[in-house]
Amino acid sequence: MNNQFGIIMAGGIGTRFWPESTPEMPKQFLDLTGSGKSFIQQTFERLNKQIPTEQIYILTNERYRDLIKEQISQISDKQIIAEPVMRNTAPAVLYAAKKIHQINNKAVMLVAPSDHYIANDDKFASNVQAAFDEVAQSDKLMTLGIVPNAPNTGYGYIQFENTPNPIKKVLQFTEKPDLQTAQSFLNQGNYLWNAGIFVWSSASILQAFKKYLPEMYQIMSRNDDIFNTALEKDFIKKNFPLLENISIDYGILEKADNVYVLPAEFVWNDLGAWNAIYEQLHQKDTENVAVNTQLLADNSRGNLVKTNGKKVVLKDLENYAVVDTPDVLMIIPRKDYQKVKEYAKYFSPVPEK
Amino acid sequence: MNNQFGIIMAGGIGTRFWPESTPEMPKQFLDLTGSGKSFIQQTFERLNKQIPTEQIYILTNERYRDLIKEQISQISDKQIIAEPVMRNTAPAVLYAAKKIHQINNKAVMLVAPSDHYIANDDKFASNVQAAFDEVAQSDKLMTLGIVPNAPNTGYGYIQFENTPNPIKKVLQFTEKPDLQTAQSFLNQGNYLWNAGIFVWSSASILQAFKKYLPEMYQIMSRNDDIFNTALEKDFIKKNFPLLENISIDYGILEKADNVYVLPAEFVWNDLGAWNAIYEQLHQKDTENVAVNTQLLADNSRGNLVKTNGKKVVLKDLENYAVVDTPDVLMIIPRKDYQKVKEYAKYFSPVPEK
Repeated sequence: MNNQFGIIMAGGIGTRFWPESTPEMPKQFLDLTGSGKSFIQQTFERLNKQIPTEQIYILTNERYRDLIKEQISQISDKQIIAEPVMRNTAPAVLYAAKKIHQINNKAVMLVAPSDHYIANDDKFASNVQAAFDEVAQSDKLMTLGIVPNAPNTGYGYIQFENTPNPIKKVLQFTEKPDLQTAQSFLNQGNYLWNAGIFVWSSASILQAFKKYLPEMYQIMSRNDDIFNTALEKDFIKKNFPLLENISIDYGILEKADNVYVLPAEFVWNDLGAWNAIYEQLHQKDTENVAVNTQLLADNSRGNLVKTNGKKVVLKDLENYAVVDTPDVLMIIPRKDYQKVKEYAKYFSPVPEK
Repeated sequence: MNNQFGIIMAGGIGTRFWPESTPEMPKQFLDLTGSGKSFIQQTFERLNKQIPTEQIYILTNERYRDLIKEQISQISDKQIIAEPVMRNTAPAVLYAAKKIHQINNKAVMLVAPSDHYIANDDKFASNVQAAFDEVAQSDKLMTLGIVPNAPNTGYGYIQFENTPNPIKKVLQFTEKPDLQTAQSFLNQGNYLWNAGIFVWSSASILQAFKKYLPEMYQIMSRNDDIFNTALEKDFIKKNFPLLENISIDYGILEKADNVYVLPAEFVWNDLGAWNAIYEQLHQKDTENVAVNTQLLADNSRGNLVKTNGKKVVLKDLENYAVVDTPDVLMIIPRKDYQKVKEYAKYFSPVPEK
């Protein structure tokens, strides 16, 4: 029996990719790089190379169930784990771990975000396999850390103990440092970015929940018999809302002393906003990046143009993001990607749930 | 019986308003100012205020028959005069004059372009009525001339004899003068722009054709009995292609000595290209003109934005034309409106018929 399970975290509802992303169609369901597949489709296929289809679960909100069934037709309804209310990552991971451990108490789990950009899937597979092999024979809680190429202040950093073994003991997590601190991390050389990619055995992570989030663990352990039965839905509906709104990083990883990191060998980008699409896809600074677009650039350079298959003419435009959807057209300098949320709010003033 | 007839010239296939205008949907069928009506609908309604519905004819190509029936549902099929082949304005006017004269030999005709912008329809009606009244009792060939407000080198100029009578004798036509000549015309004060708006009796214009374009007149007079009968279509199919490709201005008006002009009192703009839409619709130079668009302009001014009902966000953009259609998005400086034909050709390299 294959003990490897995958958990794809697909509950995000961000609007940083407005107007393409909306609460009805968030980033993980979009193809923003012109690959022909949405991020969640790419993520599923990446995991599916080493994890059996029926052992990949998708953690999401009930509202996205139909979208997921539409985009990932291979999986069955019971592999979509819908949270009845929005909670943070710790309750979601605990829920998934309980279900999987009930199915296979020798399970090892990969937890992966659904909306990141990863190139070189083979390296991803070999890194994940190394982690699976490690956690199958130890109680290590592992993360895959990204080798930083800039003092980015938007990421969490993982400090590791510098040993010859490729799997390094984690010394400390630091959330979003200031620029000076980030630069010093890079200079020290034993820091990686936290990409939210975790590998552990279901037994080890449940043990960690019991130790570091005992209240949450107790609530979810009131009746282990209901997992993967018809009774599960009612149990979750009643108990999940009682769980603390806390991240797995803050609730477990920053406290546990058995956390390890493997420096990733694949290309990774969380693609946090429109500008990141340009940064990831362009070859040189003067290039225009045209996604799903037939572009005629007349004296125009450095632009990101994303449409749904349109012909686009640009003249005398530099370093803009041009994003066209059936309802909205946005033309802004790429550097102003942070204003997108403000524009989204202007046109959709209803508060998001 | 009302002797007043209208002829709307609607055969144009220009691409200066690409990507909105295409050979399948040229300018006259578009609403480019956000009025809620296409240019030809506006033109029809303007004429219909004084000319009975059944006495308004539309001269066009066969390919636009369905579009016209769709946009002007009031008229009957026989009021759509379709040229079997593209000819210039002289053959078209002669064809219409023959038909109308056969119906009513006391007819007076207004010939008007289908795709111009005219504001103040009441003034238009009173100017046209004055011309109708004049040509009903004389053999005058009349034009309505536009008082020039700039030394525009793209128009034809009409020099008139400066007399107290509001209806002035035409001395000379000048096509597209150079800037210096245009400026001297403005300084002299007795020049008007030729807007292609003509008024005459069917008898007078037929007389003029007989005199100045006798060959064309003879061909179209081979069998007067067929007009407005089932035989007309075959006759036209056979004979119309034989007619000389010449404009009414060049073929008749520049030669005849009974040509008169009435200075128009209405606001007129031929809206020759995207920039002209901005120029006509803006109140002050910093204003953005948004046509069929819900615009959020962030540090952006002087732009023309035309979509089909979209929300648009602009940041840091000045004096651009932003035109969005279901297939094409064009973002170019307004001043570069002349490059539109080049872009149209790039994306539609098939030669237009």
